[in-house]
Amino acid sequence: MDFTFDAPTEELRARLLAFMAEHVHPAEERFHTELVALDDPFAWTTAPVMGELRAQARGQGLWNLFLPVNHYGALPDGLGGGLTNLQYAPLAEITGHSGHLAPAALNCAAPDTGNMEVLALFGTPEQKERWLDPLLKAEIRSAFAMTEPDVASSDATNIETSIVRDGDSYVVNGRKWWITGAMNPECEIFIVMGKTDPDASRHQQQSMILVPRDTPGLEVVRPMHVFGYDDHEHGGHAELRFTDVRVPAENLIGEEGQGFAIAQARLGPGRIHHCMRSIGVAEKAIELMCSRATQRVAFGRPLAAQGVVREWIAESRVRLEQLRLLVLKTAWLMDTRGTKAAHTEIQAIKIATPACVQWILDKAIQTHGAGGLSQDFPLAASYAGIRTLRFADGPDEVHKNSLAKAEIARWQA
Amino acid sequence: MDFTFDAPTEELRARLLAFMAEHVHPAEERFHTELVALDDPFAWTTAPVMGELRAQARGQGLWNLFLPVNHYGALPDGLGGGLTNLQYAPLAEITGHSGHLAPAALNCAAPDTGNMEVLALFGTPEQKERWLDPLLKAEIRSAFAMTEPDVASSDATNIETSIVRDGDSYVVNGRKWWITGAMNPECEIFIVMGKTDPDASRHQQQSMILVPRDTPGLEVVRPMHVFGYDDHEHGGHAELRFTDVRVPAENLIGEEGQGFAIAQARLGPGRIHHCMRSIGVAEKAIELMCSRATQRVAFGRPLAAQGVVREWIAESRVRLEQLRLLVLKTAWLMDTRGTKAAHTEIQAIKIATPACVQWILDKAIQTHGAGGLSQDFPLAASYAGIRTLRFADGPDEVHKNSLAKAEIARWQA
Amino acid sequence: MDFTFDAPTEELRARLLAFMAEHVHPAEERFHTELVALDDPFAWTTAPVMGELRAQARGQGLWNLFLPVNHYGALPDGLGGGLTNLQYAPLAEITGHSGHLAPAALNCAAPDTGNMEVLALFGTPEQKERWLDPLLKAEIRSAFAMTEPDVASSDATNIETSIVRDGDSYVVNGRKWWITGAMNPECEIFIVMGKTDPDASRHQQQSMILVPRDTPGLEVVRPMHVFGYDDHEHGGHAELRFTDVRVPAENLIGEEGQGFAIAQARLGPGRIHHCMRSIGVAEKAIELMCSRATQRVAFGRPLAAQGVVREWIAESRVRLEQLRLLVLKTAWLMDTRGTKAAHTEIQAIKIATPACVQWILDKAIQTHGAGGLSQDFPLAASYAGIRTLRFADGPDEVHKNSLAKAEIARWQA
Amino acid sequence: MDFTFDAPTEELRARLLAFMAEHVHPAEERFHTELVALDDPFAWTTAPVMGELRAQARGQGLWNLFLPVNHYGALPDGLGGGLTNLQYAPLAEITGHSGHLAPAALNCAAPDTGNMEVLALFGTPEQKERWLDPLLKAEIRSAFAMTEPDVASSDATNIETSIVRDGDSYVVNGRKWWITGAMNPECEIFIVMGKTDPDASRHQQQSMILVPRDTPGLEVVRPMHVFGYDDHEHGGHAELRFTDVRVPAENLIGEEGQGFAIAQARLGPGRIHHCMRSIGVAEKAIELMCSRATQRVAFGRPLAAQGVVREWIAESRVRLEQLRLLVLKTAWLMDTRGTKAAHTEIQAIKIATPACVQWILDKAIQTHGAGGLSQDFPLAASYAGIRTLRFADGPDEVHKNSLAKAEIARWQA
Repeated sequence: MDFTFDAPTEELRARLLAFMAEHVHPAEERFHTELVALDDPFAWTTAPVMGELRAQARGQGLWNLFLPVNHYGALPDGLGGGLTNLQYAPLAEITGHSGHLAPAALNCAAPDTGNMEVLALFGTPEQKERWLDPLLKAEIRSAFAMTEPDVASSDATNIETSIVRDGDSYVVNGRKWWITGAMNPECEIFIVMGKTDPDASRHQQQSMILVPRDTPGLEVVRPMHVFGYDDHEHGGHAELRFTDVRVPAENLIGEEGQGFAIAQARLGPGRIHHCMRSIGVAEKAIELMCSRATQRVAFGRPLAAQGVVREWIAESRVRLEQLRLLVLKTAWLMDTRGTKAAHTEIQAIKIATPACVQWILDKAIQTHGAGGLSQDFPLAASYAGIRTLRFADGPDEVHKNSLAKAEIARWQA
Repeated sequence: MDFTFDAPTEELRARLLAFMAEHVHPAEERFHTELVALDDPFAWTTAPVMGELRAQARGQGLWNLFLPVNHYGALPDGLGGGLTNLQYAPLAEITGHSGHLAPAALNCAAPDTGNMEVLALFGTPEQKERWLDPLLKAEIRSAFAMTEPDVASSDATNIETSIVRDGDSYVVNGRKWWITGAMNPECEIFIVMGKTDPDASRHQQQSMILVPRDTPGLEVVRPMHVFGYDDHEHGGHAELRFTDVRVPAENLIGEEGQGFAIAQARLGPGRIHHCMRSIGVAEKAIELMCSRATQRVAFGRPLAAQGVVREWIAESRVRLEQLRLLVLKTAWLMDTRGTKAAHTEIQAIKIATPACVQWILDKAIQTHGAGGLSQDFPLAASYAGIRTLRFADGPDEVHKNSLAKAEIARWQA
Repeated sequence: MDFTFDAPTEELRARLLAFMAEHVHPAEERFHTELVALDDPFAWTTAPVMGELRAQARGQGLWNLFLPVNHYGALPDGLGGGLTNLQYAPLAEITGHSGHLAPAALNCAAPDTGNMEVLALFGTPEQKERWLDPLLKAEIRSAFAMTEPDVASSDATNIETSIVRDGDSYVVNGRKWWITGAMNPECEIFIVMGKTDPDASRHQQQSMILVPRDTPGLEVVRPMHVFGYDDHEHGGHAELRFTDVRVPAENLIGEEGQGFAIAQARLGPGRIHHCMRSIGVAEKAIELMCSRATQRVAFGRPLAAQGVVREWIAESRVRLEQLRLLVLKTAWLMDTRGTKAAHTEIQAIKIATPACVQWILDKAIQTHGAGGLSQDFPLAASYAGIRTLRFADGPDEVHKNSLAKAEIARWQA
Repeated sequence: MDFTFDAPTEELRARLLAFMAEHVHPAEERFHTELVALDDPFAWTTAPVMGELRAQARGQGLWNLFLPVNHYGALPDGLGGGLTNLQYAPLAEITGHSGHLAPAALNCAAPDTGNMEVLALFGTPEQKERWLDPLLKAEIRSAFAMTEPDVASSDATNIETSIVRDGDSYVVNGRKWWITGAMNPECEIFIVMGKTDPDASRHQQQSMILVPRDTPGLEVVRPMHVFGYDDHEHGGHAELRFTDVRVPAENLIGEEGQGFAIAQARLGPGRIHHCMRSIGVAEKAIELMCSRATQRVAFGRPLAAQGVVREWIAESRVRLEQLRLLVLKTAWLMDTRGTKAAHTEIQAIKIATPACVQWILDKAIQTHGAGGLSQDFPLAASYAGIRTLRFADGPDEVHKNSLAKAEIARWQA
């Protein structure tokens, strides 16, 4: 269990910290100004600053860092990647300090990261050329369409979208929502989860298929809001309707019935990326909380001198240190023993991270007073984002239930 | 300690429940549609449905119910009012079920309620005729400008806005933010808190003054957001700048140096109204949680059959029943012994209510999955609103500190 | 919903407070000294001071106050009783201030209270004369034998003790534990719950029967400890073994199959008594916490000036006020509509009370440092006692589950 | 940051696990039986089984494992020691599974461990020969007398015991309590903290001195109880009175004024040992909880199938994994950078461990029902022990305050 950051990681950390200071943080205000000026507020990838940041990041080798070396091997020249989870972890944490701008600038933003992994692992050569290559170059964006409005999607057998073979095509029918990134017109390709065989065994019913945005019958119904935010700065969350959407049979990813397995393979790394970035969010919150507590005076003393505020700060630090170590252990386990061996730890960080970070954000908000809920600080938006993680790819309760079953079984063996 | 709802209250409850079912709930969708069609999204009072609802409410005697009989005596014919706090409590709870629409329709919405109370209690006959009368008729709206961006406003000595006597005028300079309702152009009058004598004793420095919206030098800088909401459906929250704003000396409310006392007098009833409505919010959340838990199936059983969800529902009910009783006791104390005698209880409900209701909303959201955070249910918007109550007119921590001091003193006596 | 203490209650409160100050508190040290001197430490009723206190209490009409007027009518001269639950509530709270001494001195201590109620409600004239009469006079003590070591007793169908009819007798076989009071040799009579018909429907299988202590085959196996305490000062908690214990058929209470119904009838009042006394325990803890915080200085300031301690005190007061109101409401409901109509509220206080009081005790202990866990303050012993209430007559989780089912059903109707 | 257990550690773990299975666990019942038979219940070291276990442990090289190699160098043949903190950590965790028996059998029990460290680091050759040598051989026991009844001892300036130079002697006067192990007559030597110079600067006032048990004027007043436990099985906790207790000047440890520094040096390792063992306690609790949940059936299903119990188990596992990693990191930091560099982490585990383990124990108790609080399971006694850690060598609040100050300072630099 060795979490030491190796020399390449330390070098990358230094380079990334410099990149954040020189390029990302100064660009934040410009990004928001450019977004306001767009005709379509969701077309965030067309903000000029985004193109500039990406060119700089790619030029500095800060590109596609998320793509694990053991998934894809060496990427072609200049496309980056090639790190282990443990190497990527401290980098992802750093990007978490700046909300959505840094991950996107480095081509390390969800849901594209997970989609690239799916294509890298399960895609045919043709699928890779057509979709993975432009994604790795950030020429297009993608979305992952799993969640449905009418059922508890955490139970994959509930999925109602159908994918029916018809000659050389598959025909997709169904409704999806919370499809992150899909409001952006540059989001050109959707990976859609549906059932090809509702009568197969529990985890063989589902398949995944590639559906290009311009396919007839695919309708973007509306944007979903999260606590009042439409999240246009990273493409929003769409409700979609698929009505007799026909795509060539070769758009299927892997085999029929492999959908559940692909989803599982996708979720492990996705979860750890979210957790790493969330720790960055929490670090930022602690920094803001300490800074505010020092500056704000009430009843003759700065907040920083008041016991209750100190209690919040101490608890925040103590909780976050524990969480970070568990995330690092999980990354190390995934690297050394594989995603399956890290199953319990992946569940554990999925459970622990949003609870911890939400708690810290709540205290940071309280330290800021009303300002903490406003657009003047990133805290409320971070809170909204972290809150969604408590049900993103399955509510906490499902993961706790599953983890407990395994724990109980350990003691029965 | 008698909390029995008397016959007039029971009659009003029945009338109000019918009004909600027949008029308010059916109007909710129309209200939002009309808001979208407005040129100025903050001009919520110009939505036609609002006028209709108000006419109906006033016609049915469901008007100005908040205005306590002992503050103002009998109102002129048809203007309502005249209830005790204990009579008003169950009515306010009912209006809490429908978010902002019901309180506004009944002319019982903050901040106008508090402002009407201030004018009723401390206004001169001229001030009452000019401002209170149209407020009681809902012909205009008002705002209360106390919070400042640069200081912890919970400590009144921190206030930086100056109100300086100059001949027959007062000149106001300063910045305010989170001035609820002030984005609405129909919000015609501001009650502004500032310092007339920074050298006076701690609670004699402040005064309150009436500043009409169109006074030169008063600038509406921008709307503040709460989480991602701009709360345009009740006039938003404005940042204001006062630059050499000159008003006649007779605009002062009460005497110079009375500002702190007036603020205190205003806050008691305001807090209890917030708490009553918040309990309605929580009741609605429990209803939605139970309903969702019954309909949603995961892993072969409805959520309502799952132990953790039942734990949430039971805890919600047990906590809310306790809270409601404390609010009723506080109302009864205010009615029978006055606001001062109810000081500890008013603090207690100010502390207890947001914590309890926020907890219930969080569980209701979790039961709804991602939908719970969206515009499809009122839960996330309610959460945002309730969250602000943890620092509205002083953060929890200030009130806890004060309540504890009094408790400790009890045992030293 | 009128919780006003009526004139007789106020008069009794004054009399009881005087009795506590003059007699009970001064006797506490003597009681513990006398207990140490006993041959059998569990024979607490033989401590001379107990007899004196009882005589004084009975002489002052502070006797059997727990026995509700509507259960038994007027008691014979000098035996007290005759209060409503709402009248008894504030008196029980006062007795909670002094641990076990006050309830016992007033003949208002569990489990005798519940046993007297059972006999009053369901006993034959012979049973009343033989057992109820000396219990009302505190000449003997009793125990209630329901919980069993091998099964989850919260589910009454789990009960394994058998009560088998054999001619004119019943024969009892089984094991019981946590039989409070039973280590005291003056505990002369046991009410035993067992199954007379394991094949009957779920709630018709059980019966209750009177078993005198000296019946052959009844063995007191050992005392149970609670957190290191043997609770000898109120008769401990025994493990019992019943081996072919034969009693006359007329010892059955009520009818065969009525055991579950009698248990339910017994539990309602028992729960509310526990809750009332627990509130007294919490009040005492707040008093001790405030007093300690004032006296103890660390790092140059008394604890009472430190924010975290003030937070504890404020939270304690705010939580306890809510809890007390819910308990009073429950008492009022039981008085005015009966135990059945108060079912949800009785569950609610059973859930809410130990959680609230345990929290307060934990903070009071922390304020006292190591002393708080020691024999020098009543806090740790109170904590142990309150902790048992989280599973006494059914763990919290069973009650929450049941309350939630009812809440969900409300919204489906 | 490398937490891998090296080969010697793995070998020791295997040897210790075997020793626990073969010797310690089978001895537990015998130990308690032998304790009951003792004339002085506190003379736990005279229980024959203890001697046997010690001989076996020492014979197997499982002896004095706690004594860090960098404090004392190689111990003489057969006296063990010589591990790093990271090597010792998993061994200490294993001993935590069996309460007090295993640490004592391995001569790794507090307070002797800390006292041996103090003597090893600060003792003169004569002090080492006289006291350290027999302690390393477990021929005698020792106590550490710091806490005082009348003041908040977490603030060292509060200490009231005086140590006054008088010719060739020092004279000690004062009161101490919670002096663990001191009720055991084989506890022959006390390390006493007192003030030699009350007028010196804050952390130069205190000194430490060796006081043999039989010194005139040293009185063992009474045993202190923790909840209801007297903890006789490891020597109890004594209240002591020092009246003109005269010892030779050479009994001083280190220099006058060094007392605070020695205490600090002692506490770092002591805290980490407590935390390691506490994790073992929590592991045992999870094991018992899972086992009980599998065996116990209520309402037709084992507890292990019920959602709320699963939630407890999952939370327990997730919290404990995080805590263990933080403790390991702290051990690694102490080994590689020294105790001072690990200051924040030592505070963090001091804060986090009792809170986490107490939570787990509470849930394990609840899963066991009343049995969980009794002598039939180790849970309640463990709870009592862990609860004391929330103020042992300073309450949580002091450590949180200090940690927060450092965190705030980081962001101001």
